[in-house]
Amino acid sequence: MIYADNAATTKMSPAAIETMLSLMENSWGNPSSLYAHGQNAKEVLEQARCDIAHAIGAEPREIIFTSGGSEADNQAILSAAENGKKAGKTHIVSSAFEHHAVLHTLNKLKKEGFEVTLLDVHENGLIVPEEVNAAIREDTCLVTIMYANNEIGTIQPIREIAAVCRQRGVPFHTDAVQAVGHIPLSAAEEGIDMLSASAHKFHGPKGVGFLYARKGIRLASLIEGGAQERGRRAGTENVPGIAAMAVALKEACANLKQNAEHLTSMRDRLILGLRQIPHSALNGDPQRRLPGNVNFCFEGIEGESLLLLLDDKGIQASSGSACTSGSLDPSHVLLAIGRVHDVAHGSLRLSLGEDVTAAQVDEMIRAVREVVDYLRGFSPIWRDLMSGKKQFIL
Amino acid sequence: MIYADNAATTKMSPAAIETMLSLMENSWGNPSSLYAHGQNAKEVLEQARCDIAHAIGAEPREIIFTSGGSEADNQAILSAAENGKKAGKTHIVSSAFEHHAVLHTLNKLKKEGFEVTLLDVHENGLIVPEEVNAAIREDTCLVTIMYANNEIGTIQPIREIAAVCRQRGVPFHTDAVQAVGHIPLSAAEEGIDMLSASAHKFHGPKGVGFLYARKGIRLASLIEGGAQERGRRAGTENVPGIAAMAVALKEACANLKQNAEHLTSMRDRLILGLRQIPHSALNGDPQRRLPGNVNFCFEGIEGESLLLLLDDKGIQASSGSACTSGSLDPSHVLLAIGRVHDVAHGSLRLSLGEDVTAAQVDEMIRAVREVVDYLRGFSPIWRDLMSGKKQFIL
Repeated sequence: MIYADNAATTKMSPAAIETMLSLMENSWGNPSSLYAHGQNAKEVLEQARCDIAHAIGAEPREIIFTSGGSEADNQAILSAAENGKKAGKTHIVSSAFEHHAVLHTLNKLKKEGFEVTLLDVHENGLIVPEEVNAAIREDTCLVTIMYANNEIGTIQPIREIAAVCRQRGVPFHTDAVQAVGHIPLSAAEEGIDMLSASAHKFHGPKGVGFLYARKGIRLASLIEGGAQERGRRAGTENVPGIAAMAVALKEACANLKQNAEHLTSMRDRLILGLRQIPHSALNGDPQRRLPGNVNFCFEGIEGESLLLLLDDKGIQASSGSACTSGSLDPSHVLLAIGRVHDVAHGSLRLSLGEDVTAAQVDEMIRAVREVVDYLRGFSPIWRDLMSGKKQFIL
Repeated sequence: MIYADNAATTKMSPAAIETMLSLMENSWGNPSSLYAHGQNAKEVLEQARCDIAHAIGAEPREIIFTSGGSEADNQAILSAAENGKKAGKTHIVSSAFEHHAVLHTLNKLKKEGFEVTLLDVHENGLIVPEEVNAAIREDTCLVTIMYANNEIGTIQPIREIAAVCRQRGVPFHTDAVQAVGHIPLSAAEEGIDMLSASAHKFHGPKGVGFLYARKGIRLASLIEGGAQERGRRAGTENVPGIAAMAVALKEACANLKQNAEHLTSMRDRLILGLRQIPHSALNGDPQRRLPGNVNFCFEGIEGESLLLLLDDKGIQASSGSACTSGSLDPSHVLLAIGRVHDVAHGSLRLSLGEDVTAAQVDEMIRAVREVVDYLRGFSPIWRDLMSGKKQFIL
C-alpha cells in the first residue's frame, strides 16, 4: 500500500497523537478557568502558541488558533475587506488558481460590491510580481496569493510579492496550507502580513489550524462569542488539538531540510518515469514546486477511472484537490494554467510522504503506466486521437 | 479534588478517547478522497451523523458538523438573518441572558440594521412563551432562546416557545450547548428549527460541535471553501473528533435518566446545604434547572477570591461562564435576573459531574461555608452591612 495523497491529508505523527492523548486524559480543563487545572491548560495553550510562532518566524501574539485552514483563509480575507471598506477601499487582487476557501470568500465579497482582479498564473503556474504591482490600484485593500498550490505544487515568489505589497501599502495574505512544515518559511522576514495554515497537512490533527496576523493588522471575528484569543476567535480552545499541532510542526521543521532533500529526489525520479508515458505532461513548474508534489495530465484518459484502478493496485492518489473530488468539472487549477477540458480531465496528483522509497516510486511509475495503457484501450477519445480524427495536444 | 465546573468543560469519556485514538491511528484518510482509505473515513463520518441525529430526534441530513457551539450559534443566527433580509424581515427576538456567542452575533447584526428585542427572563430566569408571542412582529425573521442557561441552569419551556414560533411562521433556534446529553431532548418532536451543541460539554472532545437545521431551513456558510457538509461548512472534516463526539453523546443519552436522577438529588442536597449560609440566595428557578447546576450569590463577597480559596481546598468551580472569567464586569446573566452589581459579584456556580458523591457534596458545603465566613471577615461591604450602613438585600 502506497499513500501518495499527502496534499489531501497526512497521517498524524506518533508524538502528536501521544501529546493529544496525554492532554485529553490529564489537562482537559477550560483554559479560561481561574483554578489551577484551567490555568495548566492555559499554559499548554500559550506554549503551543510560542512554538508555532517560533516555527514560522512570528511572535506568539501574532498567532490565533482556528479550526483549520479554511477558517483562517475566511477570517483573513473578511478582516481585510472590513478594514478596507472602512477606508473606502473595495478592490482585491488574487489569482485564478487559489484554493476554494479563498475563491469562494472572494465571490461572497463580490456580491457585497467588492471588485476582484484574478491574476494570470501562466503556463508554469507562477505569478509574476510585476503583474501584482500592475494590478494594485488606489482602492486595493488586499492581495491574497497562495504560498504553494495544492494541486500542482508551484511555489510562488512570495518574498517578492510581499515586497511589492509592502511598497504599495497593501496588506498581503497568503494561504500557506501546503507550505507550512514542508518548505522553509519565515513570515516576518518575508514580509507577510497574514498567513493561514492547517495542522493535518503536516502530520497534526484534523480540525485545527492557525492564522498569523502581523501585529498592527486588525482582525475581525468570524466566530463571535467569548473573549478567547484576545477577542478575535470565540469558542473554548481545543487545547489537546492545538498542542498536538505544535508538536507536529516542531517535528516537521526539525526534519525539514532532510525531508525536502529526500522528497525532491523521489519527486524528480517519479517525474522522469512518468514522462516516459507518451502524450503525458507535467503540470506546473518542474523546479519551483513542493518537494513531494507530482501532477501529470495523460491525454485520452478519465481521471476518476485512473484513481480507482490505482487504488486497486494499492496506490492512493487523487486527480487534484480532495475538497472537490466527486465534482465532474475539471480542476480550476489546471484550466488556469491553460489545460483544455479534455486534457484537464485526465489528471493525476501524487503527493509523496517523507518515508517514500525509491522502490515505491518505481512501483508507482509501473502501475500508472499499466493503468494508463489499459484505460486508453477503451477510450473513444484515444481512438479518435490515434485515428487522426482529433489532434494530440500533449 | 472535586471538579465542579462541568458547565465549563467536561473530562472526556474513556470510550470517546479510545475512538479518537483508534481513528487517528487507523482511519485518518480524507473523507472526500475516492480511494478506499478515504471512503472508510467517509463511512465513519456518516455513521457519526446518524448516531447524533438519532440522539437528538433528527434526521442525519439535518446535522452539520462545526468546530463547536459558538460556531454553530453564529451560523444559525447569520443564516436566519440572511434569509430574513431577502424577505425584508430584519427583526430578531432573543433573551437578555443568552450566551455571548448569541448576543455578540446579534450585536453584529444590529450594526447591519437589524432590530433585536431581548425578552425579560424574570427573577426565576424563565422566559414566558406568551411574551415571545407578543414580541414577534410581521418582520421577525428569527427567535433564538437558549435551551438551558449556562450560568444559572434554568431550562426554558422550549416546546411551548417553539409552538408559538411555528404558529407565527418564524424560525426558532436554540443554543442547546448545556442541554444536549444532559436532559431528554427531541428536536423534531419539540418543533425546534435549529439547535447548537458542543461535544466537550458532554464528555466529548474540544473543538467539535454540531448544528441541527430542520430540512427546509436554508443554511448559509460561515466558512466558505470546499463542498464538505453538502456545501454548508467547508474544511476537511475532523473525523476522529466527530466520531468521538458521537460516542460520547450515545453514552450520555444511554445513561441520561439515571445520571439526571442522581445529579438532581445531589444538586438539591447541595442547594439545601448552601441555603444555610446567611444572606445567600439561589440564582434561577429551584425546579426547572439542569440536574447538575447550582448557582448562588453570597452577599458581601467577591467571587474571584471565593474561587481561588476554594481551589486551595481542592474544589474547582467558577463564578459564572468560563468564557468571560477574567472580566471585572458582573455576569450579564445575574444582572438579567435582577441581581444588583454588588450581589452579582459574589456569585458561585457549582456544576456537578455524574460521578459526584454525597460525601463530596457535604465537603463542598463545608468548604464554601468556611470560605464565605473567612472572606466576609475582611470585606468592607460586609462590615457596612453588619453595621447597618448598608441594607442587606439577600
